[in-house]
Amino acid sequence: MTTVTETARTAEAARTAEAVDPAAWSCPAPLRDSPTIVMGHGGGGAMSAELVEHLFLPAFGEAAATELDDCAVLAVGSVRLAFSTDSYVVRPLFFPGGSIGELAVNGTVNDLAMSGARPLCLSTAFILEEGTPLAELARIATAMGTAARQAGVRLATGDTKVVDAGHGHGVFVNTAGIGLIPDGVDIRPARVRPGDAVLVSGDLGVHGVAVLSCREGLEFGTALESDTAPLHGLVAAMLDRGSSGRHPDVHALRDPTRGGLAASLNEIARAAGVGIDIVERSVPVPEAVADACGILGLDPLYVANEGKLVAFVAPDDADRVLAAMRNHPNGRGAALVGTVVEDHPAMVVARTAFGATRVVDLPLGEQLPRIC
Amino acid sequence: MTTVTETARTAEAARTAEAVDPAAWSCPAPLRDSPTIVMGHGGGGAMSAELVEHLFLPAFGEAAATELDDCAVLAVGSVRLAFSTDSYVVRPLFFPGGSIGELAVNGTVNDLAMSGARPLCLSTAFILEEGTPLAELARIATAMGTAARQAGVRLATGDTKVVDAGHGHGVFVNTAGIGLIPDGVDIRPARVRPGDAVLVSGDLGVHGVAVLSCREGLEFGTALESDTAPLHGLVAAMLDRGSSGRHPDVHALRDPTRGGLAASLNEIARAAGVGIDIVERSVPVPEAVADACGILGLDPLYVANEGKLVAFVAPDDADRVLAAMRNHPNGRGAALVGTVVEDHPAMVVARTAFGATRVVDLPLGEQLPRIC
Repeated sequence: MTTVTETARTAEAARTAEAVDPAAWSCPAPLRDSPTIVMGHGGGGAMSAELVEHLFLPAFGEAAATELDDCAVLAVGSVRLAFSTDSYVVRPLFFPGGSIGELAVNGTVNDLAMSGARPLCLSTAFILEEGTPLAELARIATAMGTAARQAGVRLATGDTKVVDAGHGHGVFVNTAGIGLIPDGVDIRPARVRPGDAVLVSGDLGVHGVAVLSCREGLEFGTALESDTAPLHGLVAAMLDRGSSGRHPDVHALRDPTRGGLAASLNEIARAAGVGIDIVERSVPVPEAVADACGILGLDPLYVANEGKLVAFVAPDDADRVLAAMRNHPNGRGAALVGTVVEDHPAMVVARTAFGATRVVDLPLGEQLPRIC
Repeated sequence: MTTVTETARTAEAARTAEAVDPAAWSCPAPLRDSPTIVMGHGGGGAMSAELVEHLFLPAFGEAAATELDDCAVLAVGSVRLAFSTDSYVVRPLFFPGGSIGELAVNGTVNDLAMSGARPLCLSTAFILEEGTPLAELARIATAMGTAARQAGVRLATGDTKVVDAGHGHGVFVNTAGIGLIPDGVDIRPARVRPGDAVLVSGDLGVHGVAVLSCREGLEFGTALESDTAPLHGLVAAMLDRGSSGRHPDVHALRDPTRGGLAASLNEIARAAGVGIDIVERSVPVPEAVADACGILGLDPLYVANEGKLVAFVAPDDADRVLAAMRNHPNGRGAALVGTVVEDHPAMVVARTAFGATRVVDLPLGEQLPRIC
């Protein structure tokens, strides 16, 4: 029998175990401004990067990949696999053009596609808040099934946890995915070089504004629908060998989700140690997005997309890749928006419509949280 | 410019899109008792199984694996991969013997190990509540790094999302994992046959009681610490070819987490269409667990474990596998607890200490929610 003394002693031990001793962990200088989690830590900008660099990587130690990238590449036997994960916490759960369900499938499919991989299968993990209507969950799961069929991926394994009412937010979804990287394809930030063409696949800012348009209490409306779409088909078209017999030399790919195009360009500039020049008026931004951003004081370069990519392509192959993009349904609005340069390494500079230049910095957090 | 009429019209459309029409989805009969999510849907028992069978599988449609098992097996090129995911929502975050960090690594490592796989790498995805102390997150991440090093897996890729205060619960962690299944290993529920020996690797119920002992407000104490541990080393020892030159014939493996041994045995009995007989007094339950369960009215067979497994082994190999388990640090307390039978298919029957028999049913939900 557990004695009373034992019970008292171990209850005390348990309380001690539960209490966090702030002295046991010394907050690194770059994180000291905010010793607690704030929204910006999840925004995909500078604060997210700091959290990875100064908290996760030191804490994981030798167990961590050298860089916690959006997508890991693993050599297993004779195959190269892409492996990626994302959690989805978008609010509202349903928005014009889609739902958290399509995002959870297409988002992870796209993370795999950005390494050139053909997505094979996804895991699906739900954290559900007590009291969530089953009808809502069914609608989300149905959207996931439809999106998975359209993307040609299997939903291979899953998990469901339930948390108390007031300790979740309806439905959170995590997906992880495995993809197969074709032979001869090598797409990663470190391959980006001065001279590379910077291409985007179409209109930017649509997803973020579509979600914002129906945010609770905001009542801001536009005719825009989220651009959520799987992009591996577009990537395959861009890499098509064609009559040349070789893959066009695509150096790096990014899907500009959280933090928008600005975050993606800054990440690549820093990872490759290069500068990037873009021409603002070449960046395709639909009028409705520009209008909404004007009213709300947002910069379209920082607004999230869920069905667009940015490509860094060797100059000799840029025309060919741009043409392939424009021939694909998900790349009709593709455009050359800039060039990789040797100047101002790790910095992104935009030439404005007025002929001036401005630095496009890595966003601190996210202009619009919970958009994916 | 977006016109006022357009704004009004699309704001209305967005509200409609957001509202869930209960008529659009017809709740299947088995789920009608609870048209909203309740804690039991996350308990790993009958309600969890109903949610998968009657909501997720029909909603996912053709995109779903035929069975959403804890672990999927994929043939990619010449290799067979195991792929698994779990979210961790345990409360408190720190408990005697471990934290959500160790659970998140060992839990997914063990899901992979239960298909005989050697775990290769994990993804790590965090859903953080605004206001969570960084020191708490650092302590969890450090535990994950240590557990990953001990298990020999890499933390390969990750994601961090932040949700508003009051819409999360400190830290939720999701891990997904990839493992490599050795040639000649074929471990899955459908291989279980009448005559198989049912072995468990040691003391049951320790994790659940350890977590319960420090649940907020409960103040129940024992000297028990969570048994969280990676089990792939134990599995490799059980499968060792030794001088015979062949793997012992292990038909199926399960780690009895949510729902405890009772849930695992029922899952196997249903999946393989067999009956299972166990002898209660052969099931290793430490005195402290038995005492705690006695006080609280819990059945140790239903209490969660995080470092134990149950194995179904061909009768001719049972002694050899049991000896290999007892020779391994994670299997010292291994015991033969029962037999697979032709009688009472899909049903688990226990012979009690008084010589009577009782049906050990699949739990409805979970006796102790949020224990993993």
